[in-house]
Parts: sequence; C-alpha cells; structure tokens
Amino acid sequence: MPRFRLTLAYDGTGFEGFQLQAARRASRTVQGELEAALARLHGGSPVHVDGAGRTDAGVHALGQVASCDLPRAWAEADLVRALNAVLPGDLRALGAAPAADDFHARRSATSKCYRYTIDTALVQLPQRRHFALHVPAPLDRRAMGEAALLFLGRRDFASLASTGSDVKTTVRTLTRSELRGVEHEGGPGLVYEVEGDGFLRKMVRSIVGGLLAVGRGAATAAVLEYELHARDRRRWPPPAPAHGLTLVRVSYTNGPEESR
Amino acid sequence: MPRFRLTLAYDGTGFEGFQLQAARRASRTVQGELEAALARLHGGSPVHVDGAGRTDAGVHALGQVASCDLPRAWAEADLVRALNAVLPGDLRALGAAPAADDFHARRSATSKCYRYTIDTALVQLPQRRHFALHVPAPLDRRAMGEAALLFLGRRDFASLASTGSDVKTTVRTLTRSELRGVEHEGGPGLVYEVEGDGFLRKMVRSIVGGLLAVGRGAATAAVLEYELHARDRRRWPPPAPAHGLTLVRVSYTNGPEESR
Repeated sequence: MPRFRLTLAYDGTGFEGFQLQAARRASRTVQGELEAALARLHGGSPVHVDGAGRTDAGVHALGQVASCDLPRAWAEADLVRALNAVLPGDLRALGAAPAADDFHARRSATSKCYRYTIDTALVQLPQRRHFALHVPAPLDRRAMGEAALLFLGRRDFASLASTGSDVKTTVRTLTRSELRGVEHEGGPGLVYEVEGDGFLRKMVRSIVGGLLAVGRGAATAAVLEYELHARDRRRWPPPAPAHGLTLVRVSYTNGPEESR
Repeated sequence: MPRFRLTLAYDGTGFEGFQLQAARRASRTVQGELEAALARLHGGSPVHVDGAGRTDAGVHALGQVASCDLPRAWAEADLVRALNAVLPGDLRALGAAPAADDFHARRSATSKCYRYTIDTALVQLPQRRHFALHVPAPLDRRAMGEAALLFLGRRDFASLASTGSDVKTTVRTLTRSELRGVEHEGGPGLVYEVEGDGFLRKMVRSIVGGLLAVGRGAATAAVLEYELHARDRRRWPPPAPAHGLTLVRVSYTNGPEESR
C-alpha cells in the first residue's frame, strides 16, 4: 500500500484535539474526521493516520502533517481535491505527497514550529476570540522577551511536563524561542514563536504560562530559570489556554513541510 | 435620558443580521442581543438602539455604530466594561461616548466604509472560512481593479438595489472603490474597500458580484458600465456571499468613529 504525507490545516475550536481517544470514542477529533474521510474515499476500507503533533482540544494548525498507507495510488492534486470534498469545513488538506515506506509523520519529524498569539487591547475583536488569548492587563513585554531566551538550547523540560506523559526523556532542544510585539486592526498584541526537535504534552502552553507570569510581574526570569532547573512540574505556572496556540509547520530532513 | 453612541464589533457568523425582524422575533440579531444587554444593565427597562448599517446575516463589523437613550448617565469606560460583561462573546462594545440629543447612528452618519475579502488560494485556510469568500478559480485582478473605478462618484445605483428596498432615492456617492491584491499566511487574496455616503441593501455585495463576474471573464467593465446605466437590477450579476463582508467604520461630521 502506497504511503502518503498529508499537510493539514484546521480550526481547532470544534475538535477535542488531534488524536482519537480510546476512552472517548464519541469525541470529535482531527484524526477521527480524517480517517473517516479517507475510508470514504476507499470504499469503506479502514485507513489509519499518524499525526506529527498531537494537538490538544482547541489548538489550531496551519501545517500539521499526517502519514498514512492508502489502499491505492493517487495523483497528489486529485487526493487533495477528493479529501477536501468530503472533509468538514474546519479541516482542510493543503497538500498530499507520496512518502517513503519508512516515513512516519511524528517519528521522522526533525522539528516543529508552534505559535502562541496574545491580544492585549482592552477589548478583543470577537473575530479573533477563538485564535488569540485575550489579556487586557498590561504585560511587561521586555521581561517576557528576556525570559523567552531561557528555553533555548538543549534542556530538561521536566518542570513543564504534563502529568501522565509516558515519555522516555524530558530533554528537548529548542532552536527558536522568540516573543515579538505586533499591531493589528484589533490593537496591540504579542506573538510567541518556538521551534524545536520535539515538545512534551502542553509544553508550549506551559512555556507561555511562565512568560505570562513574568509579564504580569508574578514571576521573574530568574525565578523561571530556577524552576526550570528544579524539574518539579507542580511549581510551574499553569499552562496558557489552548485557543491561542497554532501548530505552524513540521519539518523533515528532506526539507521543510510548509503549510503550502 | 442621556443619549449614547456605541461602537461595536461582531463576528456575524452566528447572527441573522443587525436588525430585529418583526416577522421573525425568534431570530438572533445584533440589535436584539444589544438591547437585551442594555435592558439587563438598567433593571429590565427596555432600551431601543438604532444601528448605522443594517448588516445582513453573516456580515461582520469592526466599527458598527449604534445610538440609544439610556435611563441613566454612565462613565464611558464603565459602560463599555458593563456591556461586555453581559454581551455574548461574538459581540463586543469597543467604545461608548455621550452624544448630542439629535445624534442618530444612521441618519447622522456622513460616510461608511465596507471591506470585502476574497481568498484565491487553491485551498482556503479553515481559520478564514467565515471571514473571506473562497474563489479558487483564477481571477483577472487588473480587469477587476479597472471595473472598481466605475462605481466612484455620484451615481444612480438602481441596478444594484435589492427588491423590496423602500428607499426614496437610489443615488449614492462613493468616494473610494479600490481593489488590491494581498498576500497572507493562507496564500494570495483580494481586498475590496468601498466608502460612500450611504449604501442600498446588498449594494456592496452586488458591486463585488459584478467585480467577480469581470474577474472570471463572464463580463467586462464595459458591460458593467452599461448595466449600471440601464438601472435594471434583474440583469446585474448576483450579490457575493455575505461572509466576505465587513463594516469597517462609520464616520460623522464631528470626526471619524474608528473601530477603536
């Protein structure tokens, strides 16, 4: 069966995350909708997909990647068109490409890039309410930018690991951790972008939770640095809400898989 | 009773337009939600609001303006905060200011600015599906830009008037009618912005319908010009869908009412 690499975008608002949950079969997931659409395109034959990033409920994607074996060969443009004809409106296939037999969307990934968006205007535009966290309180952007540098490089992120993560190691390498101010029609805001070789569950949202604590003056970069080394996740600030987070792209050794 | 001018933003997706419809009292409208919120802030006293633009179902706003008489005086920031505490998440008050007794959101308006957004990428990002029309077919942007100039100045827009409009005159003056290409994360697109002293029902969407006919090669600017002069609305191309349209701002003689 030919293997494919699919690039996906979704509005995470209506999904209970990417991954099918064994305990909650009735929940609507990206994986569930995608597998149902692929089965429909293949006369009901079950198709299993693996996602590069197991995004949580409410988290969006501009360039999620999934791998799967399909019962038959497809021309790339035909597969994209056929998928989008049967996928729900909040989930789109942006691309489809043949992949090597050993390609696995998650295990083959060399890096992922996430973005977290914060609106700081007094009132948030309702058009943005599902895509950016609203923090009307003043935030110390400079202190947050300084603190963002703490996460760069090869680190043990045990302090930020969600409970119940059954990972072998909590060491990850971040090559980018950057906060910038933005100005859009709805007013000022902050965008945090982070890229690394992998992320623990809720790790990006925990980093942003730490940055927000610094921005509000509830913590300093020095405190975060200490807590990062302490490797005690109970003392880390709570993770930022899911809806501000977007999986921007997943990269592989054979070149980046951009959102289009 | 002190009169107020409210500036509003809304995600029009979940509304059946701005205006309360006598025939369909059960429908969810911006006016209905706003009047309910204002009544709640005043111990149940009924409050009537007038909107500057009677946006249709699915049309969004960044800077709609409404006028109303309130049972008591309010400090501006207090009124904004109180309103947003009781309004639904898809409708926000961006500003509130005392207004002269003869101020009327629609009748006092000197101009309104609307924007229509079109995504032309092969696949539209699902995050944008409620806010931009998706036209994956190639569009002749140059021809559309030329055609946009036809609508400038003082014109009789009878060809674009929706049936059932009970307006005294179909003459309106447009001071801006501009199409520009844009490039965003989801790919290329077009933005049409139009400003004028007033708009007939579905007039902006009808203009965009005409521009799309030109962009697809189904009409030329010369044909549109002829049809505009013919003043026969049955021959005009159909209006573009509502969800691409946003009321950007409403201006008054005492200065523009920006979205913030």
